[in-house]
Amino acid sequence: MLYDLLNKHNAEFFLQYGSGKDANFYYSTSFKIPDAALYIIGSDGTDLLVVSEMEKNRAEKESKVKEIASLADLGYYENLKELKDSKKALAITYVNLLKGHKARKILIPPNFPSFLAFHLQNYFEVVIVDNPFSKLRMVKRKDEIEKIKDVGNAIVQAFGYFMKILRQHSKCEELRNEVELFLFKNGYLAEDTIISSGEESANPHSIGFGEIKDHVIFDVFPKSRTHGYYSDFTRTVIVNENKEIEEMLDAVVEAQEKAISMIRDGVMAKDVHNAVCDILESKGYHTIRKKFKEGFIHSTGHGIGLEVHEEPRIFENDEVLKAGMVVTVEPGLYYKRIGGVRVEDTVVVRKNGCEILTPYKKKIKLEA
Amino acid sequence: MLYDLLNKHNAEFFLQYGSGKDANFYYSTSFKIPDAALYIIGSDGTDLLVVSEMEKNRAEKESKVKEIASLADLGYYENLKELKDSKKALAITYVNLLKGHKARKILIPPNFPSFLAFHLQNYFEVVIVDNPFSKLRMVKRKDEIEKIKDVGNAIVQAFGYFMKILRQHSKCEELRNEVELFLFKNGYLAEDTIISSGEESANPHSIGFGEIKDHVIFDVFPKSRTHGYYSDFTRTVIVNENKEIEEMLDAVVEAQEKAISMIRDGVMAKDVHNAVCDILESKGYHTIRKKFKEGFIHSTGHGIGLEVHEEPRIFENDEVLKAGMVVTVEPGLYYKRIGGVRVEDTVVVRKNGCEILTPYKKKIKLEA
Repeated sequence: MLYDLLNKHNAEFFLQYGSGKDANFYYSTSFKIPDAALYIIGSDGTDLLVVSEMEKNRAEKESKVKEIASLADLGYYENLKELKDSKKALAITYVNLLKGHKARKILIPPNFPSFLAFHLQNYFEVVIVDNPFSKLRMVKRKDEIEKIKDVGNAIVQAFGYFMKILRQHSKCEELRNEVELFLFKNGYLAEDTIISSGEESANPHSIGFGEIKDHVIFDVFPKSRTHGYYSDFTRTVIVNENKEIEEMLDAVVEAQEKAISMIRDGVMAKDVHNAVCDILESKGYHTIRKKFKEGFIHSTGHGIGLEVHEEPRIFENDEVLKAGMVVTVEPGLYYKRIGGVRVEDTVVVRKNGCEILTPYKKKIKLEA
Repeated sequence: MLYDLLNKHNAEFFLQYGSGKDANFYYSTSFKIPDAALYIIGSDGTDLLVVSEMEKNRAEKESKVKEIASLADLGYYENLKELKDSKKALAITYVNLLKGHKARKILIPPNFPSFLAFHLQNYFEVVIVDNPFSKLRMVKRKDEIEKIKDVGNAIVQAFGYFMKILRQHSKCEELRNEVELFLFKNGYLAEDTIISSGEESANPHSIGFGEIKDHVIFDVFPKSRTHGYYSDFTRTVIVNENKEIEEMLDAVVEAQEKAISMIRDGVMAKDVHNAVCDILESKGYHTIRKKFKEGFIHSTGHGIGLEVHEEPRIFENDEVLKAGMVVTVEPGLYYKRIGGVRVEDTVVVRKNGCEILTPYKKKIKLEA
C-alpha cells in the first residue's frame, strides 16, 4: 500500500516524525520511544529509523524497522557544533541523509512538524498525503479486535463496580477516583473519566464535578497498560425520577440501537449519522445537522484502537464502514437548562452487522 | 513577551494548533481538550480559541482565553459540504478567519502541523519561531515549583516503599507494577517506570524485564493526577556485591554531586555537562562527548514541568541556567557487557545554588 502511494505520487520517500505516543509511528515501527524520532520508508527499499545514541540498541531489539541509525552515526553532533541550533542541525542531518539516498520528491503526513517540512522544501519537493498508516489502522487485525474486546470486558466490569458503589458516594470526584483505581488495579489506565451529573453534564467532555443529582453519566475510555489499545463506553444512570431526562434517554437509546442495527460492511457513515438525527428530530430534539447548538451536538461515533479518537468518523462524511473497523456509537442530547445524556458502545463492523464489544443493558435506573 | 515577538517579526498573529496534551497549548490556554484546536493571539488584541461546537461552553468556562468561537460559528460545516475534505475545510475556515482579521504575516511554532502551514502559506507569509511559551515555561512560577516538589515527595515515598518490598519480589515486572499502583493510589500516574537489572539496564530507556540480578535501576517520572506536573528520580540499588557496578555507581554519584554543586543562576548548561564528562573520563569511562557509543551516552539533564522532557537541556549547548528553572541531573554509565547505572534528581535552580526536590541518599545497598 505504501509503495503504491509512492508510485502514485512518483515520490521516493515517505517520512514520519514522532514519538511512540504517535499511534501511526508506533503502529508502523512497534517502537515505544519517549522522544521524537524520524522514520523513513523509501521506494528503494529503505526502512530506516533514526534515533538518539541512547535508544539505538533498544531500537535494534524492540522495533520492527529493518535498519537503525543514530544521530551520532549521521553526523548530527558536528552539525550541531557548526550551527549551534538543535532544530537546524537535526534538519540538516536529515537533509544530508536523504540527499545521500538521491531523494527528489518526499511525502509527509499532515501532522509532520512544520520546522522540518520547511527545511526539506529547500532541497526536495515535499507533498502532504493522508497518513497511509491511519488508513491501514482503520481496519483492525484479529489480534487487535481481541485487545479492544479485552478492554471492553474490563470496562463492563468497572461499570458493574460503579453501580455497586454508586449509593455509597455523593460526589462525582469520589466515584471517578474509585472507578479509575478499580481499572488501574486490573491493568487498565483511565484518564479524564467522565462521571457527570446535573447541568454540568450538558458539556459532553466535562469530567463532572460535585453532587450526584437526578442522573449520572458514566463515560470511561481506558487503555490497556499491557497492550495499549483503548475501548470506550458510556451509560446514563437514572438516580432519581426526572421526566425530561428519562425521555431524553429513551430517545437516545432508540437512536443508538437504530445506528447499531444499521452498522455493517458497506454502510455509509453519514447514513448512520442521519438515521440518528432523524430519530432525535422526530421526537422534537435539536441536532447539529440543523445547525442547532443544543441537542445532539457531536458526531455519532469515531474509530478507536491505539487512539481513543481515530478514523473513521461517523458524521456527515462520505466514509464507508468496512468489516474489521472498530467504532463507537454514541448519540447524546445536551441542554444547558437540563443536562446531558449519552449512551455509547464500542462495536466491530462485521459483514452482515456489527458485534458489540461492551455489552451492557442501556436503560438503567438505580434502585432505591 | 509575545507582543515583542510579533513586533520583532513585524507579524500580526501567532498560532498554536494542539490538544490539551500539548504542554504549550495547555499552559497558554488552561484548557484540557482531547482533540486539537486552534489558538490565535494577535497584535490587534485577538485572543481567540477555535473549538468544536461540543467544547464551546466548556471552553468559555474553563479556559483563560478571552474569546471562544466554534467551528460552526465560522462556517466550517458549509466549507466541509463544499470541499468534502475535513482537513481542507478546516484550513479554509482558519484562512477566512485570519483574512477577516487582515493578517499578512503569521508566526507558527516548530511543531505546527504541515497540512495547516502549507495552506496558510498560500495566503500569508508564514514564519516558524521557537514557541515563546516553551521559553516562558522554562522558568517556573512559585506555584509550579510547589507542584513539582509535591510530585518529588510522592516519588521519594514510592522509593521507600520499593526498598521495603524489594526482597519480596524477584522480577522487574512485579516491582514496576507495585510501584505504579502505590503511586496511583496516592494520586500520581507513572507510566513506563524503569525497574531494570542486569545487562538489559545498559539500555537507558528500557523499562526492564525478568529477574533482579546484582543491581536494579529505579527510575520513575510520574505526573500528578490532580495538577499534571511531573518530577523525575532515579536510584541504583546494589543488591549483590559486584565490583564493576559499584565502581561505576561511585563514579556516577561523584559526577552527579559535582553537577549539583555547580548548578546556580547563570551557569552554562554545557559547563555542567562537561564537568560530568570530565569526572567520568578521569575514572576511565567513555563519554558521548568523545563520540563513544558506550559509557555516558546521553545528556546530563533536561527541564521538567508539564512535560517529562522539556527545555532546557543540560548538554553541549549554549543555554544558561536561570533561577526558577527546574531540571533533572542524571549522569549514567552504560556498558552492554555489564549493564547500566544512573542517579537522578529533580532540582530547582536558585540564585546561589540549587534545591533538590527529590532528596534521598545516593549510595544504596540492599541489606541481606
